[in-house]
Amino acid sequence: MEFEAMSCDELSAYLCSVPSVYALLNEPGELDIAEVGDGNLNYVYFASNTKTPEKSVVVKQAPPFLRLVGKTWPLTRHRMEREVAALRRFGALCPQHVPRVYHADNERFLMVMQRLSSHRILRQGLMDGIVYPKLAGHLSTYLAHTLFFGSDLYLAPDVKKQAVSAAINSELCKITEDLVFTYPFEDHASNVYSAAFPRAEIERLWKSPALRVAVGEMKWSFMNDAETLLHGDLHTGSIMVNQDETYVIDPEFAFYGPMGFDVGAVLANLLLAYFSRDWHDDGARTKTNAKSNAQTNAKANAEELAYRDWLLEQATQIWNGFANQFAALWREHESRRKSHFIGDDRGGACAEAFRARFMQRLFAASLGFAGCKMIRRIVGMAKVADVTSIADEALRATVEVRALRCAERLLVERHSIASIDDVITLARDIQATHYK
Amino acid sequence: MEFEAMSCDELSAYLCSVPSVYALLNEPGELDIAEVGDGNLNYVYFASNTKTPEKSVVVKQAPPFLRLVGKTWPLTRHRMEREVAALRRFGALCPQHVPRVYHADNERFLMVMQRLSSHRILRQGLMDGIVYPKLAGHLSTYLAHTLFFGSDLYLAPDVKKQAVSAAINSELCKITEDLVFTYPFEDHASNVYSAAFPRAEIERLWKSPALRVAVGEMKWSFMNDAETLLHGDLHTGSIMVNQDETYVIDPEFAFYGPMGFDVGAVLANLLLAYFSRDWHDDGARTKTNAKSNAQTNAKANAEELAYRDWLLEQATQIWNGFANQFAALWREHESRRKSHFIGDDRGGACAEAFRARFMQRLFAASLGFAGCKMIRRIVGMAKVADVTSIADEALRATVEVRALRCAERLLVERHSIASIDDVITLARDIQATHYK
Repeated sequence: MEFEAMSCDELSAYLCSVPSVYALLNEPGELDIAEVGDGNLNYVYFASNTKTPEKSVVVKQAPPFLRLVGKTWPLTRHRMEREVAALRRFGALCPQHVPRVYHADNERFLMVMQRLSSHRILRQGLMDGIVYPKLAGHLSTYLAHTLFFGSDLYLAPDVKKQAVSAAINSELCKITEDLVFTYPFEDHASNVYSAAFPRAEIERLWKSPALRVAVGEMKWSFMNDAETLLHGDLHTGSIMVNQDETYVIDPEFAFYGPMGFDVGAVLANLLLAYFSRDWHDDGARTKTNAKSNAQTNAKANAEELAYRDWLLEQATQIWNGFANQFAALWREHESRRKSHFIGDDRGGACAEAFRARFMQRLFAASLGFAGCKMIRRIVGMAKVADVTSIADEALRATVEVRALRCAERLLVERHSIASIDDVITLARDIQATHYK
Repeated sequence: MEFEAMSCDELSAYLCSVPSVYALLNEPGELDIAEVGDGNLNYVYFASNTKTPEKSVVVKQAPPFLRLVGKTWPLTRHRMEREVAALRRFGALCPQHVPRVYHADNERFLMVMQRLSSHRILRQGLMDGIVYPKLAGHLSTYLAHTLFFGSDLYLAPDVKKQAVSAAINSELCKITEDLVFTYPFEDHASNVYSAAFPRAEIERLWKSPALRVAVGEMKWSFMNDAETLLHGDLHTGSIMVNQDETYVIDPEFAFYGPMGFDVGAVLANLLLAYFSRDWHDDGARTKTNAKSNAQTNAKANAEELAYRDWLLEQATQIWNGFANQFAALWREHESRRKSHFIGDDRGGACAEAFRARFMQRLFAASLGFAGCKMIRRIVGMAKVADVTSIADEALRATVEVRALRCAERLLVERHSIASIDDVITLARDIQATHYK
């Protein structure tokens, strides 16, 4: 079927014609439809019962071309199928952290899913300095379950190999291969540098053999290591939160890849939030200053420091929580099956030794991918609001250089960084350093 | 179509009914058909024109079950398709080292291929102490071309991902996952130990965390790293040689896996030939002794030593030749494309630094896989004739222990072994050591 964007009336009629959706929306006489997509890739709508607006769904339509450009930039017609399949798979593993898919229509490149009306995008929440007390626990649970249950540690080998094949997502992987692992290290037309960003930093990046070797290794791993079904784009803009709940959305980049890629994405975005705190704290301070109250001001200062600590603490808690849960799922599974991935362990020390090495390698890979993801956000095309919202050009450049230096060290030193605590120390040291 | 083994008359009639094969066999009035398969997996026939016997082909039929057991042990009906596809792919890359496929009939699970009548199985040639002067050059060419051109270093990413999917070979991979990476490290019913093989060596193997961790890492890599289209079973029994030519046969285990697996298989089998030389040399000496001539005897001794050296030299030359050719193909390709896998290299030092790291990692992986392959041949189900043909039980056990110790060190020390010369030194040291 050829793609056609629906008018609001057409979408309304369509939704009412799907019995399950019609029931879910409380058999609406009329629907309020609002287009809310960002306009790059997809069409996204909220559809609510006009009379009972709390009965509401999200409709996502992924045309087989780049919406921003049009039909002259075709994308696979299977894009939406991939996302639906990933949402259903992750939803089965982690129903509390994945929006439900109510209805999918491959012919129309469309799906109807759970509306998260009391949640906001995590990146925005972090920029506003909001503490989410359950975030780390939720994200580590999500990561442990999705990464473990898609892998050879759990699945039968033939089932896993079929899953690899079913999840091939060449076009969206190509975007990552180019925009994360290649273009940022070239004088590529798609790169964007902020006004005050020192040119010497970019040159250094391009010409450092140690860094380029490390990034090359991460690119090779991304393209070859079919370890588990990944989200594939797990930055803080793909996470919706409130004080009680955490949902991971938009897995359209899902494919079988290296586990560290999802973990690294989360760590990278927390570190970017951390380094950009200088600006967002200043914003808070300014607001506070308006009250002209020294005591309030001091309190705000303390809060800012506490928020920075909280951000780094999230990185620690997410890695530790993830690693513990992942290892626990693995142990439980092997104890239930009465066998280990490595085979029987008569000595009793080998299975745990392998698990420890596995987690250590996964940690190193996560740091490497985190480094790549941070770099692409600084010198590549797609930025993050944490940084781009910094209006002071000099301050923004400082934040960017710090993020870049941190990323470089994560990549180059990933095999010698012993623990997440060392990552935190590294981030603090870099934050305390003045780069010219 | 249900599988039916053909009678000689039926096969004869079938071959004459295929125009290309009929022409190739010089339009035979009558065909001589001989079944020559080893009886485990497949049916293999020689079919020759009775009047002009030099006009001859090989027919291979891969029933959708294990021939040894029968229809109660089903195997995928796509087994033969996989082998045909791999032969054609490798043949396109390396026509001088891969037998031609003249005809394939998926309905009949059958293919007709080039007969190599003046060639013998390399393993037999090595046991007989034959020098093949072109072997190392040929095998390094075969390895470099097949491993490079199937990978992301050469193929467009989407083409490569489709190739991964098309080459999925779960059932035969499972055999390797079990028989190479798992059962040898368990008290598994399929393991076979020679009469004098010391039980303590097996226990040591099972209970060494360092070894089991290393083997676990190789298993994980085998199951996850879809780097290139591998032969998948490249031991010296899959290689046919004469003084001028080298052919690689039987790629039914072909799938997308880690490059080091094929390289390691070749190295492992050369090392097994080396360690088992004690016996095969003795055989030669006995024959020579019969002549009761001290001078001839001394000459034979010198020849034996020279042959051992020649075997190790093959390992050196194959690795070095492979590594040089692989890097050369890679450089040529990048220079033609005017871009590198890692992206532009404005500094000029990064692309070569990445290549060096890549080759170093591939070397380490090859040693790890070589270690696994040696161990499975000593304690696992499937043996090699180099070792099983040793009639002296004590001598066989010594050879086996040496092979095992060498394998263990290759696995555990693979990241610190700097070069193939170090592997040769290691093998010589172990050969000179007396294990109890």
